[in-house]
Amino acid sequence: MAQTSTMQAEARTGHKWVYLFEEGSAEMRELLGGKGAGCAGMTRAGLPVPPGFTITTEACVAYYGAGNQFPESMWDQTLEALSTIEQKTGRRLGDPADPLLVSVRSGARASMPGMMDTVLNLGLNDASVEGLGRLTSNPRFAYDAYRRFISLFGRIVQGIPAEKFDHVFDAAKERAGVEQDPELSADQLQSVVAEFKDVARRETGSDFPTDPIEQLRQAIQAVFGSWMGRRAVDYRRAEKIPDEWGTAVNVQTMVFGNMGEDSGTGVAFTRNPSTGEKLLYGNFLANAQGEDVVAGIRNAEPISAMEAHNPQVYAEFERYAAQLERAYRDMQDLEFTVERGKLYMLQTRSGKRTGRAAVKIAVDMVAEGILSKDEALLRVEPRHVEQLLLPRFDEAAKAEAEGAGHLVARGVPASPGAAVGEAVFDPDRAAERVESGARVILVRPETSPDDFHGMIGARGILTSRGGTSSHAAVVARGLGKPCIVGAESVRVDLDRRVLSVDGREVSEGDVISIDGGTGEVLLGEITTVEPNFAEDRDLQQVLSWADERRRLGTWANADRARDAIRAREFGAEGIGLCRTEHMFEEPERLPFVRQMILNAAAAKRDPDARRHYLAALEKLLGYQRGDFKELLQAMDGRPVIIRLLDPPLHEFLPKYEDLLVDVTEMRVRGETGPARDEREELLQAVAQMREANPMLGLRGCRLGILYPEINEMQVRAILEAAVELKQEGRHPHPEIMIPLIGDIRELRRVQEQLVQVAREVEARAGTDVDYKFGTMIEIPRAAITADKIAEEAEFFSFGTNDLTQTVYGFSRDDAEGKFLGFYQDQKILPNNPFQVLDPEGVGALVEMGVQRGRSTRPDLEIGICGEHGGDPESIAFCHKVGLNYVSASPYRVPIARLAAAQAAIREG
Amino acid sequence: MAQTSTMQAEARTGHKWVYLFEEGSAEMRELLGGKGAGCAGMTRAGLPVPPGFTITTEACVAYYGAGNQFPESMWDQTLEALSTIEQKTGRRLGDPADPLLVSVRSGARASMPGMMDTVLNLGLNDASVEGLGRLTSNPRFAYDAYRRFISLFGRIVQGIPAEKFDHVFDAAKERAGVEQDPELSADQLQSVVAEFKDVARRETGSDFPTDPIEQLRQAIQAVFGSWMGRRAVDYRRAEKIPDEWGTAVNVQTMVFGNMGEDSGTGVAFTRNPSTGEKLLYGNFLANAQGEDVVAGIRNAEPISAMEAHNPQVYAEFERYAAQLERAYRDMQDLEFTVERGKLYMLQTRSGKRTGRAAVKIAVDMVAEGILSKDEALLRVEPRHVEQLLLPRFDEAAKAEAEGAGHLVARGVPASPGAAVGEAVFDPDRAAERVESGARVILVRPETSPDDFHGMIGARGILTSRGGTSSHAAVVARGLGKPCIVGAESVRVDLDRRVLSVDGREVSEGDVISIDGGTGEVLLGEITTVEPNFAEDRDLQQVLSWADERRRLGTWANADRARDAIRAREFGAEGIGLCRTEHMFEEPERLPFVRQMILNAAAAKRDPDARRHYLAALEKLLGYQRGDFKELLQAMDGRPVIIRLLDPPLHEFLPKYEDLLVDVTEMRVRGETGPARDEREELLQAVAQMREANPMLGLRGCRLGILYPEINEMQVRAILEAAVELKQEGRHPHPEIMIPLIGDIRELRRVQEQLVQVAREVEARAGTDVDYKFGTMIEIPRAAITADKIAEEAEFFSFGTNDLTQTVYGFSRDDAEGKFLGFYQDQKILPNNPFQVLDPEGVGALVEMGVQRGRSTRPDLEIGICGEHGGDPESIAFCHKVGLNYVSASPYRVPIARLAAAQAAIREG
Repeated sequence: MAQTSTMQAEARTGHKWVYLFEEGSAEMRELLGGKGAGCAGMTRAGLPVPPGFTITTEACVAYYGAGNQFPESMWDQTLEALSTIEQKTGRRLGDPADPLLVSVRSGARASMPGMMDTVLNLGLNDASVEGLGRLTSNPRFAYDAYRRFISLFGRIVQGIPAEKFDHVFDAAKERAGVEQDPELSADQLQSVVAEFKDVARRETGSDFPTDPIEQLRQAIQAVFGSWMGRRAVDYRRAEKIPDEWGTAVNVQTMVFGNMGEDSGTGVAFTRNPSTGEKLLYGNFLANAQGEDVVAGIRNAEPISAMEAHNPQVYAEFERYAAQLERAYRDMQDLEFTVERGKLYMLQTRSGKRTGRAAVKIAVDMVAEGILSKDEALLRVEPRHVEQLLLPRFDEAAKAEAEGAGHLVARGVPASPGAAVGEAVFDPDRAAERVESGARVILVRPETSPDDFHGMIGARGILTSRGGTSSHAAVVARGLGKPCIVGAESVRVDLDRRVLSVDGREVSEGDVISIDGGTGEVLLGEITTVEPNFAEDRDLQQVLSWADERRRLGTWANADRARDAIRAREFGAEGIGLCRTEHMFEEPERLPFVRQMILNAAAAKRDPDARRHYLAALEKLLGYQRGDFKELLQAMDGRPVIIRLLDPPLHEFLPKYEDLLVDVTEMRVRGETGPARDEREELLQAVAQMREANPMLGLRGCRLGILYPEINEMQVRAILEAAVELKQEGRHPHPEIMIPLIGDIRELRRVQEQLVQVAREVEARAGTDVDYKFGTMIEIPRAAITADKIAEEAEFFSFGTNDLTQTVYGFSRDDAEGKFLGFYQDQKILPNNPFQVLDPEGVGALVEMGVQRGRSTRPDLEIGICGEHGGDPESIAFCHKVGLNYVSASPYRVPIARLAAAQAAIREG
Repeated sequence: MAQTSTMQAEARTGHKWVYLFEEGSAEMRELLGGKGAGCAGMTRAGLPVPPGFTITTEACVAYYGAGNQFPESMWDQTLEALSTIEQKTGRRLGDPADPLLVSVRSGARASMPGMMDTVLNLGLNDASVEGLGRLTSNPRFAYDAYRRFISLFGRIVQGIPAEKFDHVFDAAKERAGVEQDPELSADQLQSVVAEFKDVARRETGSDFPTDPIEQLRQAIQAVFGSWMGRRAVDYRRAEKIPDEWGTAVNVQTMVFGNMGEDSGTGVAFTRNPSTGEKLLYGNFLANAQGEDVVAGIRNAEPISAMEAHNPQVYAEFERYAAQLERAYRDMQDLEFTVERGKLYMLQTRSGKRTGRAAVKIAVDMVAEGILSKDEALLRVEPRHVEQLLLPRFDEAAKAEAEGAGHLVARGVPASPGAAVGEAVFDPDRAAERVESGARVILVRPETSPDDFHGMIGARGILTSRGGTSSHAAVVARGLGKPCIVGAESVRVDLDRRVLSVDGREVSEGDVISIDGGTGEVLLGEITTVEPNFAEDRDLQQVLSWADERRRLGTWANADRARDAIRAREFGAEGIGLCRTEHMFEEPERLPFVRQMILNAAAAKRDPDARRHYLAALEKLLGYQRGDFKELLQAMDGRPVIIRLLDPPLHEFLPKYEDLLVDVTEMRVRGETGPARDEREELLQAVAQMREANPMLGLRGCRLGILYPEINEMQVRAILEAAVELKQEGRHPHPEIMIPLIGDIRELRRVQEQLVQVAREVEARAGTDVDYKFGTMIEIPRAAITADKIAEEAEFFSFGTNDLTQTVYGFSRDDAEGKFLGFYQDQKILPNNPFQVLDPEGVGALVEMGVQRGRSTRPDLEIGICGEHGGDPESIAFCHKVGLNYVSASPYRVPIARLAAAQAAIREG
């Protein structure tokens, strides 16, 4: 706490520690905290705020600096401020005749869990309670306020467990034979008060403080103390809020909404927080206190009901609401109380809102002249845009289903959006059901390329195993389908075609609903709401402002023409990553892919194998040429980065474990014949290809170095597709990406060979194609030696998924399932580094790669195609280090457009 | 070729391209090449060298710079030099009466494969051959020289395949009915010459050049041309020799050792290159040419035999040898010829030698005042020391076995040394046989912790699968036992207890011999030679000089007291890495280890599991305390770095695949009962723990974060052991290493908890222990954020094995078996980066880690404990970047001592 000594010095020299609300202002948030600044702002603006004052955050810091002592003169200033309120209200704290009651609450810069709650009705004791009873002509009200005060003070200030009081109170109700709190009489409440004081004495070892000044002193100390409470400290560590901020303390005159039918209390938003409509939105409850609304004793009425109660007060409130919105230039969330016909404003702050509302409010406020476009862009959060792009469950319908116990499991959210359909347990059946018009959720223990045809048509995918980089997750994100993986409590019985969870069963055909954004699995159908991006005028308006402002390009990861078309609708300016392996997974191609793989190694020495190998490649060439032509055509005139085959080849083969079981069964049964021979042979082949750590094994450019013919086939297909398009008058711009480069010699070797192939295709066709060669920077060594690599590569694309795996030494598949969750729970890591780019480690290498790469090739095109390309915080990082573009899943492109604009605006 | 233009300019201004031997000197190696400088040096020193001259390396560079043209005046200078030789010898090139014959050979700075061989007898044609015949009175000799010349010239200069000439020659012998070359008569040889010229005409399309000057011009061009030949270029790329060096050309008067009994030829070392003994060592062959020695036509005699032939010449040679050794300050490898009683020196160069000889010569030459200690240290190569530390095959015995076809396979050399023993296929049987006194080679497809008891007693280990970081390799290196892994051509049939390779079988009990340094597997027993380190006085002398000179500490990796004792004998100053997991593998402990593992996760919620878990830990605590006590005692007074448990826990369990087969068999057979239940349960448990990429999964500090009790047990064991030792008056210095840290928060979490444990043990015992806490830097993020990590860590140890895996994205197990070999063959990587530290990528992070770590903790103790700690090139790197020590396998400590001294000397 570097500031401390300064502050102590200031304390000695008569520093100002306490501000009356009229002395502060809305801008003094740092010094007065959010609540204090809100009250000060409203007071200054002439709004009726119950008188009060704020002890500053600096006082809190000084308190800790001095070893938990109030800084010099703070207490005097507090008493002085109190005396000012007393003069204003004409009441005195603890005055038996006309007692002033106050609330004491904490108020940090940002609202913070773990900080002290509010102590209400402070100033009551055995004498003043009588005065309050007389004054209000309502002894029951007075004793009710008193018992509330004692239990709040006891719990919050003295640290007495709440149940000690609850227990006494419940016993009193039982004795009185009543069920509801309000049914207790004044006398009965008086006994409760006596018993509460006994509790306090027993628990603390001394009498409950009767001196209101002492009560106040202890309450202020308790607020300061809560700043260093365990939960508050943990929260600050996680949120990176410095201890030095401190918390303010607000002491404010109590007003009561429960003083009769001309009283009441309410909360309201200045606009509808759900739709953004410009109309007051909230609740009002006559003759009630705020607590009662929460306790649900009576149902609150809509805010408009207040107009009927008291049109004058309502009009006044409307005026204040408009005034505050203008002043704060944002939709406000207001709290107020009406005490005997007089309106008091208690709190104002910016209101939370849905995506829909955020976008509409931003657009409207620009039209109303309240906000500039830049300001409006900063008011819409990326997650707001995300909400508007996905089908989602109707909130009411979901709440109802949850209430009915239909929420049965939570898995790892792998691809967001809501989906409803009948559970189907195998891909053939899924494809069949989709064909016949059914909505299907494909449910599998995990998926493999064999399941792809079943995934295409499914509305959503649910697996009981795997992490967010499992096959199911990656494919689902590519397809933009909702997906939950690793739902470990779900048991999938493929034989019986049944999913069971905690004893409940879902059979094939039963309808389930999944939310890929939360990981929730629900039984039955939940109503969903579908988005309409193209016709969402407010969203389009915001995004077009974003496009004017952003410096980063926004590209999309898309493997197929249909994804590219969708990406373009979402505003993608190029394809940053086409994973060609996904083309290999189509069922009619898989046999040729396997033929290629099983003969690749043997082809070097066995002419027969070579013949099979080349025949398979020839066949795949045809498929790929068609794929690439469609893709390049969909992105006509725009760059399309196509990554050469990357995954370990054994991913395209049946699983070793499955084969092992098959073969073992055949062996035990003594089966012979060609079927067994075939299985045995395949088992041997797959055994040969197995790897201890496939993530770090024979994949990426290493494949192309060992089996150059596969790369050659792919480059031939790309170039031939481009040539055809050019001959049809189009403008293809393929960029060929060689993955997993770690050393310039790898790149040189592969690239030299492939440039030959490209030139050959061009020469044969007599047509030049505008192509580039480049590489992914996805292992640390590539970033470290980026200067060398850029001598050959014309573009870099940071593969931050793999880079995060290697920089942290985390296998994503293992880490997410086994320890990353625990790490985040325990605040060992602030985020999942696969979702939010780690700026310190991975980011340091990205920055190094950018600087070194541009040092030898200043016009190097640099982007990012890892999943981070769609994450706002990571996008801000990409902006800062000077990338040319980010590339994300198609549906995240609008999010990226906004986030990129925000990064540019924040840069200033 | 940046120098080229300068040279061309010099060429125009009359640059000197040609040096007569008497114009050059021994120091002009760069300009004249090794051979030219040798001849010049000997000529200058007044030794009888056949007259000749050298065309400089600069001429070669200029030749290429000018588009394969001799630089201006070079040819004139050549003819001038030739004419000088002609005057000196009184003969003329091509003179039919008294022809001068010359040899033409290349001579680069370093001897280089792929460069041009020697053309002998240049200057012969149909006329001069007659003159030579007359002059020597030996037409057979003359025509033999002529046919040798034509075939050499044809092959080397004209590029005619050797077999074209061989074919003709063989036919001639057949026609003549003779078997040996010398049996052909002069006439027969004359016909061969005619046929050879026909061959040349057919192959080149023009007549064989008869003009000796033209022959010389072409031969010089051929030498220059060979500099850019494919093999030479590849070699230079690999060895990083710049193209700009160029090669020199040496033209030298021929002398003949086959002119009668007063002639002869020989080679000799100035000392014994095998033992280092200071005595001329070599061979002499009377009446013969150098080629004849090579062709093995007659057995050469020892050099001493020359004394009998001609004591005067021998004395002269002895004098020259001593003179050259003094001049070059190194043992020389000499070539000479005696022509009709006159001695000619043909070549001098530093001689290759065994480790034994290198060490003795270095020590002797310091005693003789020839070398300083520093020079002597640079003369001994680390591999020389390695040779002296390992049992090795007797070379003759091995050559004989190879000749007999007993070399049957080559695997991956995983732990060096030679071993002989009977093949045994299972660990129980191995332990049993060792018990009864047998020498055993344990042969397995691969090894696991279950095999450990069989590995301990075995002389050597051979596996058919796995790479150099497989279990077998790591354990064998730790035990210092010869080991070959991944011998893929070997099939191990465990059922039949037979090893088969290419149809040959080795049954259990048959003796085999393996060389873990070369990967060679031989049938039968090869005689081995055992080292004796302590009594090797020459070696001890060299190493004590090294100790005076080196700045790096030399520590050892050792897991057990017996290894530590051995390491200390080898000069280890501390233990840099004790892998505690190896303690877990002892057969009597494994059940408790498994009990701990199988209950660790469940212990969090199930009291029963917790009880089992804690009981297992308690048991292991006892074992570990004993282990650590022995280890710390063995290294009394020295630092001992103990790494907390690091590998994935499933490594200690049976393999998933084995269980799957067991269970499938039981299922098919319909077995029921407790045995099946137990297997099914274990299968489930192991399935839960399986990982996609265990290298990047739940291991290292991540284990300790999830299961803190394991770390606590280990630290308790370490501290309790240290306390006991202190109480016994000893000086233990344990340093506790927390592995796989990637983020400071991981380290803080684990370290804070363990410091508590340590303090608790100290407090209970009332004894302070001198301990440190530190971490391995083995993943990139740790190096990048080393400044933060050093805030907590008191020492760093670079785990460069894992760091290489993550920086390159190479899984060692997969890469070494699947593509690293190909990468090295193809020169995509210069070395196996797991053997030689990659300075550009991995090294950059090591340097970053050192700098950043010391930036926040200047006295940070930094070492390296990866395998690179025993590799000389990597040790030089560690010296350069300022590490405090290197840590290597015990037997590599002497090598590290030497390499560290060399690094310090070379730094200057």
